[in-house]
Amino acid sequence: MLGKRRRLAVLAEGSFTPLDGKTAVGVLRYRSDEVAAVIDSTRAGRSCEACVGIGGAIPVVADLASAAALGADGLLIGIAPQGGELPATWRAIVRDALGRGWDVLSGLHVFLADDPELAALARERGGTLLDVRRTPARRPIATARAAQVDALVVLTVGSDCNVGKMTAALELRQELTTRGVRAAFVATGQTGIMVADHGVAVDAVPADFVAGFAEEMVLEAARDAEVIVVEGQGALRHPGYSGVTLALMHGAAPAAMVLCHQCGRESIRRTGSRGARGQDAATSRGPGGIGEVVIPTLGQLVREYEETAAWVSPARVVAVALNTRDLDERGARAALVEAAGETGLVASDPVRFGAGPLAEAVLAARAARRGHATAS
Amino acid sequence: MLGKRRRLAVLAEGSFTPLDGKTAVGVLRYRSDEVAAVIDSTRAGRSCEACVGIGGAIPVVADLASAAALGADGLLIGIAPQGGELPATWRAIVRDALGRGWDVLSGLHVFLADDPELAALARERGGTLLDVRRTPARRPIATARAAQVDALVVLTVGSDCNVGKMTAALELRQELTTRGVRAAFVATGQTGIMVADHGVAVDAVPADFVAGFAEEMVLEAARDAEVIVVEGQGALRHPGYSGVTLALMHGAAPAAMVLCHQCGRESIRRTGSRGARGQDAATSRGPGGIGEVVIPTLGQLVREYEETAAWVSPARVVAVALNTRDLDERGARAALVEAAGETGLVASDPVRFGAGPLAEAVLAARAARRGHATAS
Repeated sequence: MLGKRRRLAVLAEGSFTPLDGKTAVGVLRYRSDEVAAVIDSTRAGRSCEACVGIGGAIPVVADLASAAALGADGLLIGIAPQGGELPATWRAIVRDALGRGWDVLSGLHVFLADDPELAALARERGGTLLDVRRTPARRPIATARAAQVDALVVLTVGSDCNVGKMTAALELRQELTTRGVRAAFVATGQTGIMVADHGVAVDAVPADFVAGFAEEMVLEAARDAEVIVVEGQGALRHPGYSGVTLALMHGAAPAAMVLCHQCGRESIRRTGSRGARGQDAATSRGPGGIGEVVIPTLGQLVREYEETAAWVSPARVVAVALNTRDLDERGARAALVEAAGETGLVASDPVRFGAGPLAEAVLAARAARRGHATAS
Repeated sequence: MLGKRRRLAVLAEGSFTPLDGKTAVGVLRYRSDEVAAVIDSTRAGRSCEACVGIGGAIPVVADLASAAALGADGLLIGIAPQGGELPATWRAIVRDALGRGWDVLSGLHVFLADDPELAALARERGGTLLDVRRTPARRPIATARAAQVDALVVLTVGSDCNVGKMTAALELRQELTTRGVRAAFVATGQTGIMVADHGVAVDAVPADFVAGFAEEMVLEAARDAEVIVVEGQGALRHPGYSGVTLALMHGAAPAAMVLCHQCGRESIRRTGSRGARGQDAATSRGPGGIGEVVIPTLGQLVREYEETAAWVSPARVVAVALNTRDLDERGARAALVEAAGETGLVASDPVRFGAGPLAEAVLAARAARRGHATAS
C-alpha cells in the first residue's frame, strides 16, 4: 500500500464497527492481505468478521505489542474522526509504532509528518510518516474540461456520508474490468487512496481547488480508460460537506451517476464520518442543536443530483446502489425492488448481490452516448 | 487596516481595471483614506477615478519608488490571480517594499510569510507579512446551527464571480446601520477581510471546513447583531467555485438572500477573479476548452438558490442587487425595472442608486419572520 508492501496493524480503538470504522473496513475489504491485525481494546479477542462482517479470521487485538507479535510491521490509522485531529490517547500508540521503526499511514486532516516530535522519531528510527490527505501544491481551477473527455465519466453520489459511495465505485470498476472494459478508479478520499495507491483527498484541499483536482484526475485517467469511475464524497444535503460534493460533481463533470443509499438511513448523520449513533442523537438534541435534516425519497434525490450537475454539464443517474447491510436477504431484495420502482432505474447492493446490474446500466449509458456522438 | 493605520501602495500591475482589480477597487471604495497610490506601470499618470471610476485623485504610479515619494509606507497586493500565486515579476516589488521596512498585506493563496527569503527580509527590516487568506487552525464541521440564531441572516449570492456580492453586502450593512439597525458584516474573502478587519477567506479553507467556518462566524456575529449580512462567494453554476458557494449557503444558513448580477454578463467568466476578457476567450477556445456556461434568467437563479438552500434550511431571495456599471443611467433604470418584473422582487444598484430598497426588503423579511416567531 502506498509504494510498499507491509503487514499493517490497523488502529481503530473503540470504533471498530461497520458504522464508525470506515477506513478500517475499506482497507479490510480491498487490501486484507496486507492487514495483520486490528487494534481495538474494546473488542480484543474477536475476529474482524465478527466485528464488521469482513476480514475473516484476522484478529482484533488490544494493543500494538499484540499486533507486533502477529507480525505487523506498519501502523495504519484506521479512523477519520470529525475534524481530523489525532486523538490524544492515540499519540502514544503512534510513538510506539515509530519507536519500532514502522511506517505510519494516516488519513487525518492533521499531518503527522508536520509534528516535530513524531517527525524526529520517524527520522531517528528509519520509519516514514505517510499523510494520505496531504495534497499537491498545485492550485488548479476547474473549467468544465472533464465534460469533454471521450471516456464515460461515472460519479457515485449519495443520500449521506458513509453510505457506500467508495465501495460502489470500486465494485463497479472491478465488474467493468472483469467484463473487459478499460475502467479507471479515481480516488477522492483517504480510504480510496489507500486502496487505489493514488488519488487526492479532495476534502483537505483548499476549497477553491477541489473541482480543479477532480478535473485534473479525470483528464489524467481519460488517457487510458474507456470508463472512469469517480469516488463521490458527502451529499448535497449534508450541512457540513455539501460543498465538497458539488465541487466534485462540477469538477469531474460526469455524464452518468450512481446514486448510493443505505437502507434504513432516514436523516443525515450530523457528525459526518465519526460519531456513533448515540453521539448523533446528542448533537441533534444538545444546546444549539436542531432537528434532523431529512433524507428525501430516492426519486427526489435523482432529480436534485441531475439538476445540480446540469448547471455545468448534463448528467443522468443511471443506477441505484443500495447498502442493505442492516437488512436480511429477503428485506434486501424487497428494498431493491422498491428502489427500482421508485426511480425507474436498475438497483443492486454491489457487495451483497454484485455490481453486474450497475455495470450493465453504465455500459448502456456509454453505448447510448457513443451512438449519439456518432450520429451527431 | 488589519490592526494598524498605514498609507498603502496598492499593487495592481497591468490589472487596474474594474474587471480585474477587484481587491484594489474594493479597498479604494471602502478604505480610500488609507491608499497613497496604486502601482500599475501600464496606467501611470492617470487617477484612480479615471481607471476604475472610484478613488478620486489618488494617483496611479509606475513603481514602488514613486509610491514611496507620495508617502506610502505599506504595500497591499491588490490582485488575486487565478491560482493565487505571486507572479514572478512582482517578487522584486515585494522585496523592495520589505527592504524599506514596510508591512506587506497579501490575499494570495500562497502565503508570503512562508517564503523563507521574504520572511527573513521582513524580520531583518522590521516589517510584517500579513497573509489575509491564512485561516485559523481550527477544523469546524457545520451542523446547521446558524439556522437557529435570533438575528436575521442575509447572504449575498450571485450569477457569477465578481458581480458585486461583497459590495452589495457592505452597502446593505451600511444602510441598515444608518437606519439604526444593529447590523454585522461577515467577511468571507480577502478583500472583505481587508475592508472589515476580520473574517475568514473561506476559499482557502480545507473544503471540509468551509461551512463550519461560515457557521462559526454567524454564531459569533449573532451575539450582538439583529441582522447579519454575510459576503457570498462564487456562484452555484461556476464550474470551479460552486462548491464554495454551496458550503457557504449551508454553513451560514441564511433566512434571506440578495441575488447579485452584473448587467450584460451572459455567461460565467471561465477564469474566475483573474483574466481579462481576452484570456477568457482564449480559455474557452483553447485545446480542451468548451463552450460557455450560460447564466440563466434571474427568475431561474432565484429558484435554484432557494431550492438549494432549503436542502438544509429554508431561505428566500428577498431582493436583487444589480451592478449596472456598464450601462448609462437610463439603461440602468430600465434594467432595474426588468429585473423587478422578472423576479417580483425589489431591485437596486446599491452603488449607483443606494441600498435603501435592499434594506427595506431585508427589514420586511425580518419583520415577517419575527411576526411568525411570535405567532408560533
